[in-house]
Amino acid sequence: MTGTAAGAALGALDETRVSAVGVRPAGEVTGAVGERRYLHAGPPLGGADIVGPLRGALIGALMLEGEADSPEEAARILDGGGLALASCHDNGGVGAMAGVVTPSIPVVVMETDQGSRAFSPLNEGLGKALRFGSYDPATLDRLRWMGAVAGPMLDAALEAVDGLDMVELWAEGLRRGDECHNRNVASSAAVLARLAPAIVAAAGRQDAVDVLSYIAANPHFFLAFSIAAAKAVSDVTHRSGDPGVVTAMSSNGRSLGIRVSGAGDRWFLTDSPAGEPKLFEGYEPADASPVLGDSFIAETVGLGAFALSASPAIVSFVGGDPLTASDTVEELRGICRGTSSRFLIPSEGFRGTPIGIDVHKVAATGIAPLANAGLAHREPGRGQVGACLLRLPLQPFAEAAAFLAG
Amino acid sequence: MTGTAAGAALGALDETRVSAVGVRPAGEVTGAVGERRYLHAGPPLGGADIVGPLRGALIGALMLEGEADSPEEAARILDGGGLALASCHDNGGVGAMAGVVTPSIPVVVMETDQGSRAFSPLNEGLGKALRFGSYDPATLDRLRWMGAVAGPMLDAALEAVDGLDMVELWAEGLRRGDECHNRNVASSAAVLARLAPAIVAAAGRQDAVDVLSYIAANPHFFLAFSIAAAKAVSDVTHRSGDPGVVTAMSSNGRSLGIRVSGAGDRWFLTDSPAGEPKLFEGYEPADASPVLGDSFIAETVGLGAFALSASPAIVSFVGGDPLTASDTVEELRGICRGTSSRFLIPSEGFRGTPIGIDVHKVAATGIAPLANAGLAHREPGRGQVGACLLRLPLQPFAEAAAFLAG
Repeated sequence: MTGTAAGAALGALDETRVSAVGVRPAGEVTGAVGERRYLHAGPPLGGADIVGPLRGALIGALMLEGEADSPEEAARILDGGGLALASCHDNGGVGAMAGVVTPSIPVVVMETDQGSRAFSPLNEGLGKALRFGSYDPATLDRLRWMGAVAGPMLDAALEAVDGLDMVELWAEGLRRGDECHNRNVASSAAVLARLAPAIVAAAGRQDAVDVLSYIAANPHFFLAFSIAAAKAVSDVTHRSGDPGVVTAMSSNGRSLGIRVSGAGDRWFLTDSPAGEPKLFEGYEPADASPVLGDSFIAETVGLGAFALSASPAIVSFVGGDPLTASDTVEELRGICRGTSSRFLIPSEGFRGTPIGIDVHKVAATGIAPLANAGLAHREPGRGQVGACLLRLPLQPFAEAAAFLAG
Repeated sequence: MTGTAAGAALGALDETRVSAVGVRPAGEVTGAVGERRYLHAGPPLGGADIVGPLRGALIGALMLEGEADSPEEAARILDGGGLALASCHDNGGVGAMAGVVTPSIPVVVMETDQGSRAFSPLNEGLGKALRFGSYDPATLDRLRWMGAVAGPMLDAALEAVDGLDMVELWAEGLRRGDECHNRNVASSAAVLARLAPAIVAAAGRQDAVDVLSYIAANPHFFLAFSIAAAKAVSDVTHRSGDPGVVTAMSSNGRSLGIRVSGAGDRWFLTDSPAGEPKLFEGYEPADASPVLGDSFIAETVGLGAFALSASPAIVSFVGGDPLTASDTVEELRGICRGTSSRFLIPSEGFRGTPIGIDVHKVAATGIAPLANAGLAHREPGRGQVGACLLRLPLQPFAEAAAFLAG
């Protein structure tokens, strides 16, 4: 990085280039997954009870990999300790919501100009999905199709266009009203536009129609790209040697943890909060699982809630007020080391988003970061029930600050 | 319409539904074009000298239709009075910039819930284009390909998806940072996403690749859709019987004219202004033709400059300040009859755009409408040289007010 030693973390956040270079089965991308060895979102489980949506996703994962023929059989494997689990974040990846990664699940692969890589499972689409804990036959059929058809076609298309510049897509996404965490609809269409000719050139007609339809129907298609790229940038930041900057915020549904540059592989943990959910019609607060997933990595690099005023349409969705979104971002500026020169908020006169969450500033001000969160039903297989603008708990930031202060 | 007699014009602007239903050769859509009978943008020429970009476009049009083998031969036909010209607006259509329509040029066809139709030539893309007065072989080859390949495929795709709801696309476009006149990039990608599966299903592989590439490379692909739909809504407004609302603002490069509900087919005219151009690098003010084209129809229905604060990215492009864009829109509210319930500006807390430009309010306040305008080189065949945020001349609005006050 070009940053000075003092500003190396900020430099990494503001200067790392990252491109989407492929879509591959996870088993080809990381040695961390294998037979009955899967990844999940959030900090390591550490023997905690597995929260409903993650349990559902793991049941589905065992069936997807042919380890079980029924949910009951999968549950027996899981409850009998027959499945080794590790954290995505600890293994170079991120996953939205449950974030389960198995060998056959196709992941989007990012590569930085530092030569490092990161990955995230290709987004399944709306409705029932493994990431929300669904494991019904339609969910598993879609995942199999994604592995057999969509993944290889997207991989070929990404190769044909020589990768997609994620910084350019993020920057343009903000100009198109996405904050690139909970609103990805314009960026999803942008990726479709960029890849469509190559997809058609790479495939038979029906497969092309199916893959284009799958992308076009999925307003969160870009989410996997966004968080995989954010993880890649965060990992470069983590390795910068410049301490005190948050490089991961993540929840497994029981524990929420953060990682901080200068603190090595250590997680600073607290209980996963419930948030103040804005629920879809027909759901009650008790239906929602505590927050879950790795996707706050978007906030970690200056997107999501840190770009809230770029995306008024998401503000109402998560339960905020579009007219005060810039005040929300302004508050977050107070806990960050700098301003992005790449992520510009159109309605703020193209001012950059705050980047470089500083645990010392969080501890000193008592202002915890915000994140735009989706919320899953607490029972396996029930899907999404709402969203929230989550104020993260202060405790892990304070602990990290104290740890680094020595 | 559900509007009361007093509010029928506003009701038409706020309630008319309009869908893109096809792409057809203009000769199949309107009897107003035929052998050596073409349409152009702006009010009728009335024997005025033809401005450079329109002259270039007409030379290209004659060659496209096989009436001339060379620019010289086409110029002789034109100068010898061998070409009959009429106004797009007077014949149910609109065209960006020169706005030339010949029988073979493919036009996007809109249909309203009132059963009425309107059309606009399919956008050719950036670079040299007939609408900017280019007539080189590459421009004509692209137009022939559009007529032979892209037009029929888009027509089939629109039929397959049962048309595209333009109100929905416009509303979402504002959420994606387009003002749907000079910025159309997100909406172009949205249309691509909606049509891509049907395009692939309708065509051979190479044609599908070519058509998808053509759309993906054209950030103004949506412009033809937007102004054709705006024309359809404006024509319903014009027929509402509720006088005093502007239903067309348009320039042929010599005269700028407006049409107003209650004044029949009459045009209120003044000289085409030059605007205060923000020029592309390498051009001088003297290079720019006076403003040209029918695309201010977007402003007429409450988009473009009337939605300026929804599209900070276009504000810099046309030479304005993103931070004062909502003040600009606020000023325009003072000359409009109401607020759109469909075109909502995200950064203004989803307040509607001003709609129903009232000539009496313009005359009383002395505030003329604004429009986002592209600018062509004044010589034929040279293309676009810049853009501007144009303050329209007051005179035709004052004359229309006086005419209606009778």
